[in-house]
Amino acid sequence: MKLVRYGDFGRERPGLLDTAGVLRDLSAHVDDIAGEALLPDTLARIRAMDPATLPAVEGAPRLGACVGRVGKFVCVGLNYTDHAQEAGMPIPEEPVLFLKPTSCIVGPNDNVEIPRGSTKTDWEVELGIVIGKPAKYIEASDSYTHVAGYCVVNDVSERAYQLERGGTWDKGKGCDTFGPVGPWLVTADEIPDPQALDMWLEVDGVRRQTGSTRTMIFDVPTIVAYVSQFMGLQPGDIITTGTPPGVGLGMKPPVYLKPGQTMRLSVDGLGVQEQRTVAAG
Amino acid sequence: MKLVRYGDFGRERPGLLDTAGVLRDLSAHVDDIAGEALLPDTLARIRAMDPATLPAVEGAPRLGACVGRVGKFVCVGLNYTDHAQEAGMPIPEEPVLFLKPTSCIVGPNDNVEIPRGSTKTDWEVELGIVIGKPAKYIEASDSYTHVAGYCVVNDVSERAYQLERGGTWDKGKGCDTFGPVGPWLVTADEIPDPQALDMWLEVDGVRRQTGSTRTMIFDVPTIVAYVSQFMGLQPGDIITTGTPPGVGLGMKPPVYLKPGQTMRLSVDGLGVQEQRTVAAG
Repeated sequence: MKLVRYGDFGRERPGLLDTAGVLRDLSAHVDDIAGEALLPDTLARIRAMDPATLPAVEGAPRLGACVGRVGKFVCVGLNYTDHAQEAGMPIPEEPVLFLKPTSCIVGPNDNVEIPRGSTKTDWEVELGIVIGKPAKYIEASDSYTHVAGYCVVNDVSERAYQLERGGTWDKGKGCDTFGPVGPWLVTADEIPDPQALDMWLEVDGVRRQTGSTRTMIFDVPTIVAYVSQFMGLQPGDIITTGTPPGVGLGMKPPVYLKPGQTMRLSVDGLGVQEQRTVAAG
Repeated sequence: MKLVRYGDFGRERPGLLDTAGVLRDLSAHVDDIAGEALLPDTLARIRAMDPATLPAVEGAPRLGACVGRVGKFVCVGLNYTDHAQEAGMPIPEEPVLFLKPTSCIVGPNDNVEIPRGSTKTDWEVELGIVIGKPAKYIEASDSYTHVAGYCVVNDVSERAYQLERGGTWDKGKGCDTFGPVGPWLVTADEIPDPQALDMWLEVDGVRRQTGSTRTMIFDVPTIVAYVSQFMGLQPGDIITTGTPPGVGLGMKPPVYLKPGQTMRLSVDGLGVQEQRTVAAG
């Protein structure tokens, strides 16, 4: 299933994209694509319905982030060998973790703000994992039972804030709008192998990132189990799994975003995001 | 005012501690001590009520974290000169920021879990700032108008996870139960000078931390304005402001927590926390 959230920011309604691409409303069945609606039993109940019985949504509403009320947004850094090299960082021996505040989450096609004074705003196409069942101290062999599905994440990053302003990376990862999520939460049953997904990102039509989840250092089951050793995971938490090569930081010389540009990005089977960059107000 | 949340974990009700120390229920007036209930107008409305007209709560219910639905939990590191020295870190030139996931938040007297395999779980008494009005790109001279109040935070930390496991500090800061918050949200009108508050922490009755917010490197207005340059702040966000000297990491040799110990800690005027340490299940 492709689950979506549509409508104005902060007032999104739950929906489902049927196999013909028609957006259908799920409000009569779940309050949101969030929290307990992501538990295996709830997803099974939605899957058992005939989509044709759900009201079709008219027009082309804005899409919100495909998960609501995200509890935490955990990120894995330097999880592709080639990206670690382009960033000038050593290959990690265990996953590098950091957090994005959930206040940075926006819809897949919302504007991305270039922060005031920023000169190094950068892009990162990533595979996002959406947690569907509480997980704490789990084994990698159990990880998939805790995954509701997958989505595209753009882990937008301000490199000067991240790397040149002291302390941890969080300062450059959580600016408002730095977390486009969606368009769809694709349930795990439709993604038989999350380690075989091509992914790409373009800026103003120029291909910048071309990669595949095949070259991840730590795979999805390893990551979910690993994170669960450090913090309990709840339904609706998102873990984003790192980016392949081709970020602006890695270019020679580096190239960063300015207001008025367009990012398009996708992970196979999970839909396309498109954001316009604007100056922060 | 001293605002509290009481009742079972995850189902806390809003309350108020009157000047005689009687807990009174606020459920008829706000849904929670959270989000919009922290806006200046809402606090003014509660302040205008006669507490004697509110129902007294019987018994001695559990206290929850004094803020509900926390959006983000931002932390300032190394913000006391002496603590930076004991931690062997340079004095920061600008605030060091990191994040705790909100899933680590517990009540002021709840148990604190020693994570599986942990050998370096440590304590940190801190002054917490509770945001009461949205803040983005604000000046320090405006900061106080965005502060709803203050509370005690124990920024529990696993030093090996924080410092020896690669990447950022977040891995050692967000374990479940690592964020006791409360007992009270004391509104800002009752704390005329947040830079003149003594603070202390004891483990099993032995004084470990003795400090004062006077020796902060970056003060409350500076911190709120600084964080707002990197991420928008919303009502119910918490910023915790760093710890004075006396953490286990700084002792020679270092001393860490084991299951079965008791931490007591306080910041002047904000109440006392008391936690028992237990092995994570």
